[in-house]
Amino acid sequence: MPEKILLIVMDGLGDRPLKQLEDQTPLEAAEKPNLNKLARKGITGLMNPCGVGVMPGSDVAQFAVLGFEPEKVYFGRGPLEALGVNFPLQKADIAFRVNFGTIDEKGIIVDRRAGRIASVIDFCKELDGVTIDKVKFCLKPTTGHRAVLVMQGKGLSPKVSNSDPKLIRVKPLPVKPLDQSKEAKFTAQALNKFLEKAAKALEKSPVNLKRAKDNLPLANCILARGAGRMHELETFEQKFGLNAACIAGGALYKGIARSLGMKVFENPAFTGKADTDLNAKLEQAVNCLKDFDFVFLHIKATDSFGEDGDFIGKKEFIERVDKACRSLPELQNAVIAITGDHSTPCALKKHSADPVPLLVYGPNIRVDPVTNFSERSCAHGAIGRIKGIELVPELINLAGRSKIYGA
Amino acid sequence: MPEKILLIVMDGLGDRPLKQLEDQTPLEAAEKPNLNKLARKGITGLMNPCGVGVMPGSDVAQFAVLGFEPEKVYFGRGPLEALGVNFPLQKADIAFRVNFGTIDEKGIIVDRRAGRIASVIDFCKELDGVTIDKVKFCLKPTTGHRAVLVMQGKGLSPKVSNSDPKLIRVKPLPVKPLDQSKEAKFTAQALNKFLEKAAKALEKSPVNLKRAKDNLPLANCILARGAGRMHELETFEQKFGLNAACIAGGALYKGIARSLGMKVFENPAFTGKADTDLNAKLEQAVNCLKDFDFVFLHIKATDSFGEDGDFIGKKEFIERVDKACRSLPELQNAVIAITGDHSTPCALKKHSADPVPLLVYGPNIRVDPVTNFSERSCAHGAIGRIKGIELVPELINLAGRSKIYGA
Repeated sequence: MPEKILLIVMDGLGDRPLKQLEDQTPLEAAEKPNLNKLARKGITGLMNPCGVGVMPGSDVAQFAVLGFEPEKVYFGRGPLEALGVNFPLQKADIAFRVNFGTIDEKGIIVDRRAGRIASVIDFCKELDGVTIDKVKFCLKPTTGHRAVLVMQGKGLSPKVSNSDPKLIRVKPLPVKPLDQSKEAKFTAQALNKFLEKAAKALEKSPVNLKRAKDNLPLANCILARGAGRMHELETFEQKFGLNAACIAGGALYKGIARSLGMKVFENPAFTGKADTDLNAKLEQAVNCLKDFDFVFLHIKATDSFGEDGDFIGKKEFIERVDKACRSLPELQNAVIAITGDHSTPCALKKHSADPVPLLVYGPNIRVDPVTNFSERSCAHGAIGRIKGIELVPELINLAGRSKIYGA
Repeated sequence: MPEKILLIVMDGLGDRPLKQLEDQTPLEAAEKPNLNKLARKGITGLMNPCGVGVMPGSDVAQFAVLGFEPEKVYFGRGPLEALGVNFPLQKADIAFRVNFGTIDEKGIIVDRRAGRIASVIDFCKELDGVTIDKVKFCLKPTTGHRAVLVMQGKGLSPKVSNSDPKLIRVKPLPVKPLDQSKEAKFTAQALNKFLEKAAKALEKSPVNLKRAKDNLPLANCILARGAGRMHELETFEQKFGLNAACIAGGALYKGIARSLGMKVFENPAFTGKADTDLNAKLEQAVNCLKDFDFVFLHIKATDSFGEDGDFIGKKEFIERVDKACRSLPELQNAVIAITGDHSTPCALKKHSADPVPLLVYGPNIRVDPVTNFSERSCAHGAIGRIKGIELVPELINLAGRSKIYGA
């Protein structure tokens, strides 16, 4: 009887049919003999991470898929990303997730990701530690165009709006207080001053001067969102009785795992991008099953390809994930689940509320007739259609480790 | 249009595929022409008695399947079993479900059911009425190795832990108070004294001396669990507007039915074990449909075979149930539902959270293409996947007796 659980989440896996792929989704179009083998020998279904018709962010979706109700545990994306880069976050600190984006001479956003710039480490070094109105601004790079901004000081509040409009062809939004407190007003004021100062500094940054020469989009604007303060949460082990490990590249996922007390295995080869070392991640995950009851493996790039509308990239990346999974059907000691945290249809270039496919493989389960891992084939699987929050309890059941309710 | 409802619950019906049955479950492997006929002419689905991933005890599961939310009505297994044997339970009494088990010379549990001893009536007679610290201990046999223990006296509390560890190869647990009250401490103390005294008396009991001679496991230990006090509940008829009857052998199920105001039909031939008279139970159920709107028929042994890992026994018992159901397809005046209260996979020898198959038969319903009653075929039925709490309202609907919500 398997007692371990391996949960593999491909971010933004779900998609919609595309004419360019002969009315198939990227997952349907992908050659994926190994994932199909797991589906054939396992059970399948569809999952609505946060419920039917709910389009979740990766943060709340990931909490749900790990068995925690977002409405009870979610404290904002900023502090989760800060935990993800091991920033020594204090309870009073206000943290934001930020993008380095590109604005034109009129201040209009033309690219929210500065051409998916490979790293913003040099910009962060220039701006890290700036102090305005006795508030210290700490800026730490995460992956690609992403970074964490932490405000430290007295009289701060997380009740402030985003400057990131999550749209292009508009100006960044002025940050506003979300309640009437003087702390929220002060925080919004100080942050607006910092963002203005940062834009001026970035304009003159040597890296941007070089990018201008190379005709690359400048990283000349910081877009902030997801203000929050850290809270202490019940851990995964406290809730489910399983010690847990996380293998991820993206800061958010490492942060979520840390907030739930999981041990995070880091490796510079786990980039959270398409160039991540998938074989190394899978190898690390299988190794972790020796010492951990529950292993959460997160793969980011499916989502990024979806957001860019790059269906060929998404399809080919899924094919690489499939190859990296080739040894999984031989795994004897674990129930394996493969799914997404939400859909990111290439045609929309953003998240959607479409359910994600789910396969669960392991010995001694009620194998269903589904032989193919895809959005539409899994709709006919024996798991039916579940919610994200139901997944971990169901996996614990299939691993034979449920605790009884009643007597 | 049928106006009556017959609900047949096979305890622990759901299972998982077994190599020994050529990768079939006991239900799949069983010859069951009558159940299949009902499935073919009816609609099917899967049911999670208490929700996806929740592994319920028979007590909470049965409440859910009868349409009552366990979290609102459940008051502990002990008083339900006491109601099941018609013990004149007072509101202040504390009742426990107990097993007679076998411990070795070191006090380690080697069998939680004393070799599934046929009856513990003689042991109960020896110990019934013992008084310790002014608390009277009443002990009444139910079925097989099972009994009810009731504590009567002043200053008692149901907030005490179980002595039954629900495991073998460990010692029974000392009963502990579950809160800081002096009542809980006093109850735990008195119960521990009784359990010790009982073990000493059982060691010398004539029945056990004979069992030792016959090389049978001794019933030399009482394992208590499920402390509780009776509460008055809304009745089935108050909630659903249907007068209801119950046909069951197991004390728990009769107790649950009585707690919901159902009329319980008793018969010494309804043993709650594999030797129960299935034909007599079915006959009684069909008779009851004359006077009652809703008839709940409970069959226990499927669960017991699952807990013993006896897949052949489970399969053959299901075949006997099938034969006893041969006249059901002719029934004209009732909607018939056949399902389980939870799964008890033979490979696990315990409950699991796997959903149970469900079939509903009656004239004038949307017959689906499923032709076989099993865990996997029903996954493709028209009912889809429902929760236990949804079953009774759906049956009332199919019987044409729903009351309108709204106007």
